[in-house]
Amino acid sequence: GVLGSGDFARSLAIRLVCSGFKVVVGSRNPKRKASLFPAAAEVTFQAEAVKKADVIFVAVFREHYSTLCELADVLAGKVLVDVSNNTEINHHKESNAEYLASLFPACTVVKAFNVVSAWTLQSGARDGNKQVLICSNNQEAKRTVAEIAQIMGFTPVDMGCMSSACEIENIPLRLLPAWKIPIFLALGLFLCFFTYNLIRQVIHPYIREQKNKLYKIPIEVVNTTLPCVSYVMLSLVYLPGVLAACSQLYYGTKYRRFPDWLDQWLQHRKQIGLLSFFCAALHAVYSLCLPMRRSHRYLLIETAVKQAVEKKMTIWVEEEVWRMEIYISVGIIALGLLSLLAITSLPSIANSLNWREFSFIQ
Amino acid sequence: GVLGSGDFARSLAIRLVCSGFKVVVGSRNPKRKASLFPAAAEVTFQAEAVKKADVIFVAVFREHYSTLCELADVLAGKVLVDVSNNTEINHHKESNAEYLASLFPACTVVKAFNVVSAWTLQSGARDGNKQVLICSNNQEAKRTVAEIAQIMGFTPVDMGCMSSACEIENIPLRLLPAWKIPIFLALGLFLCFFTYNLIRQVIHPYIREQKNKLYKIPIEVVNTTLPCVSYVMLSLVYLPGVLAACSQLYYGTKYRRFPDWLDQWLQHRKQIGLLSFFCAALHAVYSLCLPMRRSHRYLLIETAVKQAVEKKMTIWVEEEVWRMEIYISVGIIALGLLSLLAITSLPSIANSLNWREFSFIQ
Amino acid sequence: GVLGSGDFARSLAIRLVCSGFKVVVGSRNPKRKASLFPAAAEVTFQAEAVKKADVIFVAVFREHYSTLCELADVLAGKVLVDVSNNTEINHHKESNAEYLASLFPACTVVKAFNVVSAWTLQSGARDGNKQVLICSNNQEAKRTVAEIAQIMGFTPVDMGCMSSACEIENIPLRLLPAWKIPIFLALGLFLCFFTYNLIRQVIHPYIREQKNKLYKIPIEVVNTTLPCVSYVMLSLVYLPGVLAACSQLYYGTKYRRFPDWLDQWLQHRKQIGLLSFFCAALHAVYSLCLPMRRSHRYLLIETAVKQAVEKKMTIWVEEEVWRMEIYISVGIIALGLLSLLAITSLPSIANSLNWREFSFIQ
Repeated sequence: GVLGSGDFARSLAIRLVCSGFKVVVGSRNPKRKASLFPAAAEVTFQAEAVKKADVIFVAVFREHYSTLCELADVLAGKVLVDVSNNTEINHHKESNAEYLASLFPACTVVKAFNVVSAWTLQSGARDGNKQVLICSNNQEAKRTVAEIAQIMGFTPVDMGCMSSACEIENIPLRLLPAWKIPIFLALGLFLCFFTYNLIRQVIHPYIREQKNKLYKIPIEVVNTTLPCVSYVMLSLVYLPGVLAACSQLYYGTKYRRFPDWLDQWLQHRKQIGLLSFFCAALHAVYSLCLPMRRSHRYLLIETAVKQAVEKKMTIWVEEEVWRMEIYISVGIIALGLLSLLAITSLPSIANSLNWREFSFIQ
Repeated sequence: GVLGSGDFARSLAIRLVCSGFKVVVGSRNPKRKASLFPAAAEVTFQAEAVKKADVIFVAVFREHYSTLCELADVLAGKVLVDVSNNTEINHHKESNAEYLASLFPACTVVKAFNVVSAWTLQSGARDGNKQVLICSNNQEAKRTVAEIAQIMGFTPVDMGCMSSACEIENIPLRLLPAWKIPIFLALGLFLCFFTYNLIRQVIHPYIREQKNKLYKIPIEVVNTTLPCVSYVMLSLVYLPGVLAACSQLYYGTKYRRFPDWLDQWLQHRKQIGLLSFFCAALHAVYSLCLPMRRSHRYLLIETAVKQAVEKKMTIWVEEEVWRMEIYISVGIIALGLLSLLAITSLPSIANSLNWREFSFIQ
Repeated sequence: GVLGSGDFARSLAIRLVCSGFKVVVGSRNPKRKASLFPAAAEVTFQAEAVKKADVIFVAVFREHYSTLCELADVLAGKVLVDVSNNTEINHHKESNAEYLASLFPACTVVKAFNVVSAWTLQSGARDGNKQVLICSNNQEAKRTVAEIAQIMGFTPVDMGCMSSACEIENIPLRLLPAWKIPIFLALGLFLCFFTYNLIRQVIHPYIREQKNKLYKIPIEVVNTTLPCVSYVMLSLVYLPGVLAACSQLYYGTKYRRFPDWLDQWLQHRKQIGLLSFFCAALHAVYSLCLPMRRSHRYLLIETAVKQAVEKKMTIWVEEEVWRMEIYISVGIIALGLLSLLAITSLPSIANSLNWREFSFIQ
């Protein structure tokens, strides 16, 4: 049974019908709404729909939960599935599912399907996340809903008892929260270093020697900026650990909570580290592209021609050769090690390591 | 208990014995077959074996299920594990496990272990997929079999009730079904563009100017072909979304099913996108290799010598420099963004994102 | 309830308090130890603490389990969670959890939380592995502990019945056991080939022609060494399969166990293969860096100048051009294929393939 006739209710009904379930939809206005639902779903009055179904999806807004109170008698003993979402994180004191459970103490409430979008419901779980997070205080009801999710093509994940409902309701609202600060940090650092390098490599030679070096902007200036950003970010990964150790030494205990800013910083280390790796990898690709450029070829030919005209046979500078060879080989080894770090950040690899192995690699 | 003496039955018995279980094998010909099983497993007549065991693995073909009917009395109340596979997808109307359950209504049937190969059973779960998909209508029996799988070194995955059996039986039969069309598409596109580029870069100059440019085939022709394939594939990823939107606008509803060809196309977008990324990445590697080639070095030296002989000091063409710098920098940024897309296609990353985050990145 | 006042007991109490649980700590010396625990946790005598709690975390060493025997009466009927670890793999004959269960037959023992470090407990599950492996013979107790783990921010994983306890206790002790032999093998091979190439490319020309080629060590010698290591490792991946087949043909059966050394070797193939891929990828990066080097540029200019002075216009050697073009294109294709192999080694990808697909790609 599905209560409600919104977008989500319709998608749910379509998917349930497609998965072979017998669906009955409860609406206040069954005649007007019937055309919105697939033909195989029976659309009828709410009370009647509830009577015919054992598992009832409550696809109405939290604000309208109280309008269902008149159905309390027919709902008694049934399994109610709360699929609702909030519009803000921690909008209400108690989660929607717990609120629903308090309104209908005679029902078994299960929180589920709220992490799935209406679009995914309609078209079936294809790409991306196929998980449906489920929580309830009743094992039997949780299992029933898990099996429905399974048949609908999703992967049910048991999230324990009702107290997880709040957390589950917050999931669809977040948008990469852990990445916001690190990304703005990286962009800020990039802008600073880019401006500095632009002045140094392009504007300064132009003012002093009237040389037009504008062509250096798209590749060479970017390429000297990237390792600076990468280095600063890498140091920002290891700095908070040192600060935390100092704070523990200063207070003489490791059981005192860190100040909030340090705690936040410690929590963002993984993201900062991955962005640092991303910059380092881009720097590697940019560097590898240097000999492909026309400008590189022209400069090479010009030098050769100049040397030939002057009949100077050798231009070998031992020091420059060594500097470049060592720089490149150290760079490759560093990139190889950073790649290992990045690979162990993949959830499926991290899950196959114990904490000793994970710390060893990090 | 294991019923049957085929390859799978033997591998199962070996693995169970190695995992510390007491195994009894039921055979029609216990004397002749005993040598095939490990010494620790007791091989006896079917009825006797069934009496001694609580959990019985039915390792016989579906065609011979009916021959077990004479054991119906001794089997009553036991847990039967159906490990069978079909030779064709959806060969029979009902799944093997459901058929077995209909033959032995007094038994509890569990579908399991059919996704594991005999080789993996024998040698233990090492690489690859360690999951054993289990389904049954009886929770207790499912848990028992899950624990056996756990002890044998596999990861049991609860797939819900018996209606999933059909799906589980189809899994070992599929061979990358979602990849077939995209791969043939990519190969077809590659062939077309390769022929066109071969004519343009090698055959045409040979016919018109008698220049031998055959050395361009292995790298340069391939390298101009790859981005063409990549571009066309990328456009094929975004085109069906536009077509779907148009179809919805035309019919004035988003609850009408798309035509089958469009639906198929929409389902293959992820694979087409990943192949497009693969071509783009190969193009990047090919391009990076260009300055490594002998031909590149020879052409460079030849130009320098020609310039020196003509005493022409400068050959700098501002336009060509800019074109290459911009081309390379845009290419690197595009590759960086495509890499992010490819990384979020990894199942473990996709599972850690909610649909809002996934759509944002895509 | 938490029994014990060590590092782990304190971290556990902190985390439980932070997750909203009411915590009571049992200690022999509650007055002296109270300051070590968070203020919200009640610290009292062991017997009193046990009376107040339903779930009791036993955070004492295995050696002191017997000192808890005096609490046997008050502990009866409670859920005991064994969080202990060993200092050596398979140190004792029976696992700690099974030993605890034998001491308190009236209690329900659950093995859990031993795979989590005290540090992770304190600071919350952030990076790395968030899984808490749980096993017990009692479903109800296992579920209770799983829900506690869930609320504490970890991912509970059901590992079946008590016989898995031994395996779970060994997990935190291992440190990449499958990687040790392959890594030493790779290092050994690298050293051998490096010495050979050093003699051939640097020392020999120095002795014979007094040419100083020391600058070749950081890049060129390493770069000729890497593919040798990669090739030998790749052949070591496929060799044991051939040996195994020969052994099966020789003995005329595939149900005979392989000798231990061959079995070990077969088990390490995946790691050897990944290291071979790592060397091949490093070789690719080193090769791509070759034209970036100063030495490459100097040699190019020197050749050009020499040619210009001799007025020799062409130096094109068709054979060398072809050799390099074919070498590079074959190398790229090989690296592309090896990348596919490496990607399917990721656990989350491997889990989405059936054994037929996995074998096809391998």
